[in-house]
Amino acid sequence: MTTSRRQYLVVRPVYSEDRFSEDHQRVHRRRTTLWDHVKHYCTCDSKRLKNATLSALPFIGWMRIYRLKEWLPGDLVAGISTGMVAIMQGLAFSLLAGLPPSYGLYTAFFPMLTYFFLGTSRHISIGSFPVLSLMLGAVVTRLVPDTGPPANITGFDELSKEHQRVLVASSITFLMGVIQLAMGLLQAGFMVVYLSDTLVSGFTTAAAVHIVVSQLKFVLGLEVPGLTGPLSIIYTLESIFGQISSTNICDLVTSLIIMVVVFVVKEINDRYKAKLPVPIPIEVIMTIIACGVSYGFNFEERFEVAVVGKMVSGYESPIAPSVQVFQEGAVETFAIAIVGFSVAFSVAKVYAIRNDYIIDGNQELIAFGVSNIFGATFRSFAASTALSRTAVQESSGGKTQVAGLISALMAMIVTVALGFLLEPLPRSVLGALVVVNLKGMLLQVRDVPYLWTRDKPDCVVWTVTCLASILLGLDLGLAVGVGVELLTVVFRAQFPRCSVLANITGTDLYRDRKDYTSMYEPKGVKIFRIPSPLFFANIDFFRDKLSEAVGFNPLRVLRKRNKALRKTGKLLEKTRSRVTESEVKDSDVRTVQTTWTSELPRVDIHSTVQTTWTSELPRVDIHSTVQTTWTSELPRVDIHSLILDFGAVSFLDISAIKGLKTTLKEFLRVDVQVYVVACDECILEKLHSCMFFDEEIQSSLFFPTLHDAVLTVLEKHPSPPVFSGTRM
Amino acid sequence: MTTSRRQYLVVRPVYSEDRFSEDHQRVHRRRTTLWDHVKHYCTCDSKRLKNATLSALPFIGWMRIYRLKEWLPGDLVAGISTGMVAIMQGLAFSLLAGLPPSYGLYTAFFPMLTYFFLGTSRHISIGSFPVLSLMLGAVVTRLVPDTGPPANITGFDELSKEHQRVLVASSITFLMGVIQLAMGLLQAGFMVVYLSDTLVSGFTTAAAVHIVVSQLKFVLGLEVPGLTGPLSIIYTLESIFGQISSTNICDLVTSLIIMVVVFVVKEINDRYKAKLPVPIPIEVIMTIIACGVSYGFNFEERFEVAVVGKMVSGYESPIAPSVQVFQEGAVETFAIAIVGFSVAFSVAKVYAIRNDYIIDGNQELIAFGVSNIFGATFRSFAASTALSRTAVQESSGGKTQVAGLISALMAMIVTVALGFLLEPLPRSVLGALVVVNLKGMLLQVRDVPYLWTRDKPDCVVWTVTCLASILLGLDLGLAVGVGVELLTVVFRAQFPRCSVLANITGTDLYRDRKDYTSMYEPKGVKIFRIPSPLFFANIDFFRDKLSEAVGFNPLRVLRKRNKALRKTGKLLEKTRSRVTESEVKDSDVRTVQTTWTSELPRVDIHSTVQTTWTSELPRVDIHSTVQTTWTSELPRVDIHSLILDFGAVSFLDISAIKGLKTTLKEFLRVDVQVYVVACDECILEKLHSCMFFDEEIQSSLFFPTLHDAVLTVLEKHPSPPVFSGTRM
Repeated sequence: MTTSRRQYLVVRPVYSEDRFSEDHQRVHRRRTTLWDHVKHYCTCDSKRLKNATLSALPFIGWMRIYRLKEWLPGDLVAGISTGMVAIMQGLAFSLLAGLPPSYGLYTAFFPMLTYFFLGTSRHISIGSFPVLSLMLGAVVTRLVPDTGPPANITGFDELSKEHQRVLVASSITFLMGVIQLAMGLLQAGFMVVYLSDTLVSGFTTAAAVHIVVSQLKFVLGLEVPGLTGPLSIIYTLESIFGQISSTNICDLVTSLIIMVVVFVVKEINDRYKAKLPVPIPIEVIMTIIACGVSYGFNFEERFEVAVVGKMVSGYESPIAPSVQVFQEGAVETFAIAIVGFSVAFSVAKVYAIRNDYIIDGNQELIAFGVSNIFGATFRSFAASTALSRTAVQESSGGKTQVAGLISALMAMIVTVALGFLLEPLPRSVLGALVVVNLKGMLLQVRDVPYLWTRDKPDCVVWTVTCLASILLGLDLGLAVGVGVELLTVVFRAQFPRCSVLANITGTDLYRDRKDYTSMYEPKGVKIFRIPSPLFFANIDFFRDKLSEAVGFNPLRVLRKRNKALRKTGKLLEKTRSRVTESEVKDSDVRTVQTTWTSELPRVDIHSTVQTTWTSELPRVDIHSTVQTTWTSELPRVDIHSLILDFGAVSFLDISAIKGLKTTLKEFLRVDVQVYVVACDECILEKLHSCMFFDEEIQSSLFFPTLHDAVLTVLEKHPSPPVFSGTRM
Repeated sequence: MTTSRRQYLVVRPVYSEDRFSEDHQRVHRRRTTLWDHVKHYCTCDSKRLKNATLSALPFIGWMRIYRLKEWLPGDLVAGISTGMVAIMQGLAFSLLAGLPPSYGLYTAFFPMLTYFFLGTSRHISIGSFPVLSLMLGAVVTRLVPDTGPPANITGFDELSKEHQRVLVASSITFLMGVIQLAMGLLQAGFMVVYLSDTLVSGFTTAAAVHIVVSQLKFVLGLEVPGLTGPLSIIYTLESIFGQISSTNICDLVTSLIIMVVVFVVKEINDRYKAKLPVPIPIEVIMTIIACGVSYGFNFEERFEVAVVGKMVSGYESPIAPSVQVFQEGAVETFAIAIVGFSVAFSVAKVYAIRNDYIIDGNQELIAFGVSNIFGATFRSFAASTALSRTAVQESSGGKTQVAGLISALMAMIVTVALGFLLEPLPRSVLGALVVVNLKGMLLQVRDVPYLWTRDKPDCVVWTVTCLASILLGLDLGLAVGVGVELLTVVFRAQFPRCSVLANITGTDLYRDRKDYTSMYEPKGVKIFRIPSPLFFANIDFFRDKLSEAVGFNPLRVLRKRNKALRKTGKLLEKTRSRVTESEVKDSDVRTVQTTWTSELPRVDIHSTVQTTWTSELPRVDIHSTVQTTWTSELPRVDIHSLILDFGAVSFLDISAIKGLKTTLKEFLRVDVQVYVVACDECILEKLHSCMFFDEEIQSSLFFPTLHDAVLTVLEKHPSPPVFSGTRM
């Protein structure tokens, strides 16, 4: 030990928790009760009212600080760039949802109008999101399949297949909005914390796989029935490969060209991000070219290419949602509502941190809820945000949702006036554009080896979520993923690495006794560390590990001892009777025995017969045969003190408290003194309130530190001095 | 401080984790890998083979130590008493399962035959269990309803309704056996730990409510259709009260008499337990009386009482299970298999502990699996154990499963020879006997106030499990209960009570600074305690709490500082240009600014411009206007060191490690030195393996104890001596 180092020198009395509280009075603190919270929540004054208004209509906040000269140009440019992307994505993603392309334009317009006033994020671009469109598409194709009759829903007979689908989509979107709004009003925004990065990564990768598969039919120009439900991806692939020979070559070639060009240009955009003032809008360029070529060469008739076709010009009248559709698709809609919100929220959070403003989960839920309800009324479908589009909006200079409003106006212009220009666009082009944009999502697969080397449970969560979402469908997969994720938390807490500690010679530190060489373990003392919370699922595990560590099961010892005591008593009685009344017959001995038996309850656990169990032989003087059974049957208890390190026990539930109490009692009854150290004050309070303490288990067992407990034990059971390095 | 107390005196160097490992070399320990376990598992020698045989056929173990003279009499008496109870319960519980009464006798016979050889419990009585019978009954009445056509299953047309039900019951039992066997072979016995006492209590209370409702129709002598599925209990009650006026008075009176008598005699049995050699078999007596009375007065014809009726005499031929039934009832069967096993296991555990032998969860699963498969083949239904019957078997002297075998033989005798005696027994008597036995289960409601005062989350688990099981049905309710129970674990870990610690003057102890008066908090140092594991769901919560505790958000400070730096730079340049080239035009200033902007990356987070941020003014000499914005905009950072107490952090997942890394970096970059103390060695290892450490975050931040870290901080930032009580 070099002298240059500062010394750690402490002189103070040895404390148990009881002594500590004698010396140091606790301040009585009034805890805020539920009632206080309610009162606080219900209080109303002008300031709170103002704050409530501001938080309900966040646009007032940023409108007041809007710097017209500085921000408007950026918002304008960003709005136009985002608008073009939004139009393209709207067309493409409505195919995912199983709807005619023009409805995607509605989705780029209506939800934005309300989000502008209600949303707290200033950067996300509201509109279609591929994963959401796909989940919606699953419900749509289930209720209105490509082939076969639609679900039995009132009023369906009068509608064309297309209008049936629009009705289903808008009803589901309406319900999704209602769910989001309700969750927002119930302050349920906190639930996004359960969608961890790992889970979202696995889930979106699976979604990307689904999207690729769903776009294959457009890319190859095939007719594939829309399938849903568990394992539908397998059946879809089966159907595609079954008719692979009838691929439309024109579609395939167009798609491949588009994919390669877009891919390369996107790489260039990425690489020269710093030098380009604005990324090259390659999707827009390719779409315009494709439109022109398709129109010029009349792809539709010459190569039988499926094109976008007749666009709805202008807006349609509002539509009332169908309650029957609500009933049919409630479960999926719940998943859609949660996924839609949580993706948008996590994207919004990234930009909020980057641009230093605060977003509010509950207000976002309300904003998305209202936007979806409003949008659904005007036939737009499930709105959230797409990461790519938001990136465009922010990187091209968008400062506020004014940019979003401008992009919505662009979508409106196309809907009202320029829609006819997009009519000759082949659907395969839209499919190709969707697929090529999935690169990032699919590359998340690289998380798997990363997670595997770092944290196996997280890797399991990723893999299970991804596989379940691919095979069972996105809604069920998400549920399975969340379940597994919550299970990992339980698992991590459930199987801790318990260890036996010993003193690092010359210090007041204690470490696993197997890890270091210069350790001092006082004779007859076991120090057991529980490195996790204790609850119903691991209390038995903990008891087993403790028995293993001390080398005996206290309950078994107790039972054997009681049995031995009974036997000894019987034999003792027998011997006495032989000595004193040597002529007594067998039958009489039995009577004597019976007397003993009826008296037995006295010699039970709280036995008054004092025997030194730790010595090899009991003090009571008996036959040598008894001695043999005694020593052979009884497990040795070679410790006198057990110290439990509770430093890492962050909570206890009722089962754990019961189990702990039993364990402590068992040890105390086999004459092992138990000490509990470093117990958190909250847990001590809880033990008090749960009537943990009684005659046997007293609060004097509790010590603030391990060293305090060991010093106390050493005082009670002096042993040869080994702490020579330190003065103790 | 009295002198009589032992002193706590430690003198040692101040350690950081790094210095500690310099002084104390860790022993390299080889951890057993998965491969080692596999190798160990696959090794085979004669001893292992013997053990394997013994554990596969546990009866060999206890047969070898069977003490014929001592144990056989007890087993005989116990077998006969249990047998009588088993017969009564068999008849009654088969009504719960929607089957003719005689099949309950089969259930009391067949499963026992195999359990005898395979089971590890020596005391439980195998046979029908009311909850299980009810769950089975739900499937049976769903597939073969009282009114209306049965489910579309091949071969059903040729069978009578009764035989259809028997086929369904035996198929479900078969599948249940297969599930249990598979779980046993896959060593899935550990899953019982997830059924905590609280959960089981809530679940069985709900089951008791279901049983009472299901027996009402027998007690009142009404015709009620068997309903299943969510809310079926409401519809059943509706149906009962709808026809309450047509109650059969004879049934009602008989039932009431039976209930009162049995209830009173059971109370007597309980009260004089010690004095009675064997409890009065009141159920058997009442049954015999009821049989006689019913036969004598011809209840069936005179009062239109529903009686047991024609008993099957002897055994029927084996039956093959129907795969279609498997498909229809798979989900419910899974719940039945788990409930059946876990109830039996928890009962068996109680008696194993009481009688000091070991039971093996996986072997029990195998035993129940085989017994149910075997039983199902011979038309018996779902077998588990009933607590009441097992209590009879043990209390009347049963030592081994020989008693079980004898009770099975009794059931056989009744089946083969004496069944006709039971034919006039009114069904209402059986119903009354079932209801009166539920007292204990229903009284578990008293757990609610008990749990409420002690542990709110446990109370929520109980209530939710019970209500969900009552309203949604037992299978769904169990699933909901397990889900809520797992959620409570996450919740408990998720919202910890973070606290700011301070030194208890004169000691090396640290407590919540609000709790004590004699506290010392070194100036510029915050000690923050995280009293729970960190994982995806609480890492953001922890970061918020930390920001709250230190009084600022490091990321915001960082952003504001960078912004201020940029502004200062611009203004500085402007000033200089004004001074040196006073005639330069505006446009030129702009050029100068541009130069600055391009140089900005240098003045970023790792800024080389050294500024004392903690002083009110930056050192760089600038205009007074800048100073104003500076001080008003920038949040004050008035700490120089932050100590995180990781003592109770029992695990970290990937999200937590990422979040922690970000937080530490943010603090380090605003010149707050961070220390992490009392971190478990496993977690330190994990941090190393997850590449947590880099140039900024070094392992020298880690300290073994809080006091070590505080001493180190005090050395770096000397402050007026306040630790006057101690020499430090």
